[in-house]
Amino acid sequence: MAGATGAAPAAVSPEAFLAMGRQVLAAQPFSILLGAVLEAFEPGRCTLALPMRRELQQQHGFAHGGVLSYLADNALTYAGGSALGRPVVTSELKINYLRPAVGERLLARAEAVHAGRSQAVCRCEVFVVLADGQERLCAVAQGTIAALPERPEGASA
Amino acid sequence: MAGATGAAPAAVSPEAFLAMGRQVLAAQPFSILLGAVLEAFEPGRCTLALPMRRELQQQHGFAHGGVLSYLADNALTYAGGSALGRPVVTSELKINYLRPAVGERLLARAEAVHAGRSQAVCRCEVFVVLADGQERLCAVAQGTIAALPERPEGASA
Amino acid sequence: MAGATGAAPAAVSPEAFLAMGRQVLAAQPFSILLGAVLEAFEPGRCTLALPMRRELQQQHGFAHGGVLSYLADNALTYAGGSALGRPVVTSELKINYLRPAVGERLLARAEAVHAGRSQAVCRCEVFVVLADGQERLCAVAQGTIAALPERPEGASA
Amino acid sequence: MAGATGAAPAAVSPEAFLAMGRQVLAAQPFSILLGAVLEAFEPGRCTLALPMRRELQQQHGFAHGGVLSYLADNALTYAGGSALGRPVVTSELKINYLRPAVGERLLARAEAVHAGRSQAVCRCEVFVVLADGQERLCAVAQGTIAALPERPEGASA
Repeated sequence: MAGATGAAPAAVSPEAFLAMGRQVLAAQPFSILLGAVLEAFEPGRCTLALPMRRELQQQHGFAHGGVLSYLADNALTYAGGSALGRPVVTSELKINYLRPAVGERLLARAEAVHAGRSQAVCRCEVFVVLADGQERLCAVAQGTIAALPERPEGASA
Repeated sequence: MAGATGAAPAAVSPEAFLAMGRQVLAAQPFSILLGAVLEAFEPGRCTLALPMRRELQQQHGFAHGGVLSYLADNALTYAGGSALGRPVVTSELKINYLRPAVGERLLARAEAVHAGRSQAVCRCEVFVVLADGQERLCAVAQGTIAALPERPEGASA
Repeated sequence: MAGATGAAPAAVSPEAFLAMGRQVLAAQPFSILLGAVLEAFEPGRCTLALPMRRELQQQHGFAHGGVLSYLADNALTYAGGSALGRPVVTSELKINYLRPAVGERLLARAEAVHAGRSQAVCRCEVFVVLADGQERLCAVAQGTIAALPERPEGASA
Repeated sequence: MAGATGAAPAAVSPEAFLAMGRQVLAAQPFSILLGAVLEAFEPGRCTLALPMRRELQQQHGFAHGGVLSYLADNALTYAGGSALGRPVVTSELKINYLRPAVGERLLARAEAVHAGRSQAVCRCEVFVVLADGQERLCAVAQGTIAALPERPEGASA
């Protein structure tokens, strides 16, 4: 997600900050293919949503694990990039799947728990939203977001 | 990827085993959306391929991290499910991104390093294949695949 | 940490629950070698403390990473075992080190974020406590605790 | 394990390289407390051994999970630090426990799978050695080792 956070957070309004985040998402063909929507974005945290549809499922009608890991990857990167205030790449992440994700849409909420000079460590919770609006936690993730060096390495998203 | 490995490995030919794995992949709408191909599949190991195209990229023209994590998730599950010889779910995985994935296609090779009674621990290497056929390692993953209990939990793929 | 949580949580007082947890810790020679103290313990959460001393350091005077990962491993297992209410083993964990751990003592606070039929997923935060009592987050961990099957596998702590 | 790899690998003989690694280990009070021995060390890989004794066990007579994670942490850092050729810290690691570790001693073999400009990604296998010399894999780990910046962050070992 390199490039998401080049602007100085202090210099922009909340609305402009969210708009900037949405521009980055709109520049990611894979996020467009899946249909992700950036619902909230501020320095160090974000909410990324994804309406469920048949194409995002595995063979039993649950959201595919790869869809949950995409959401976690991207949400962690928004949280970490905006905490660092610099262009970043995702270094690594770990995800635990808790229960089958069956519902109307998915919500990934991420936040930076620590931001150093060159990297941020972030956590993410992925919920499935049922038809009645109820949210159920279906995955938790933790990962490292690295500020982009001049010669990028470990660049993923 | 529950259901991939219900058949007894010993009972089927290598060709039939691969065909069975491909049937599972063909039943995963998300794998069809991305265009994944099961190139090799035997008990405890598999190779999953994905031709690159614009829709699988992030904003800098690299494969999106979520595409690599999808490949790792699915390949780990094939390896673990076929090592256990039972229907399975992915419990958790960890992925390290090593370098930007730019090339013709992606290859995920996974194998089970240990299979117990109820779970298998697997490793996966994700390569990008350049136009000249050269392979470059771009991510490594490690995860747990759990045999499906009667009432599924942690079901992801 | 198998055996920590064989008793039914509902049947015991908070004091008896903590005493039971301390008995388990007292039965772990490695925890005695390090000097860990169970400060709080209730179903699904715990606080494990460790006074710092020279023997727990690496060559620069920080707590050794292995000390932090010991604390995370044990705290995650207390949280997961007591959430499941059954004898357990640690299946896997992931830890991110955030800053050098220099201070009077270490505190690991863990809680179960999800408990299913056969496993619990838990998170842990490890703090270093300074001489003035201030706490600084120095590591975060996430892991899976599995209920012990008849024939144990993946048994670690 | 910062400081392990400040010397240029090309400048030293294999014997001197191993001796240098052992000096670092001898400077780690926690490694002395546990009794770890650096058996092999070359750029990008190492073998770290630990004779088992009662004090390293949990309540069932297995090696404590924290002992295995200590070994993985330290072995990963030797592998990564020597691959980078610079002072390093451990950023993060993930470990899967495969089976109870019961035997004469433990062996952790680690290697760097990728070394970039500022970090290395490494893998480690931890074996228990039985009385008859047979080795059994009891844990696998994967982690990130970061070159030390001027102002250290994420310093663990």
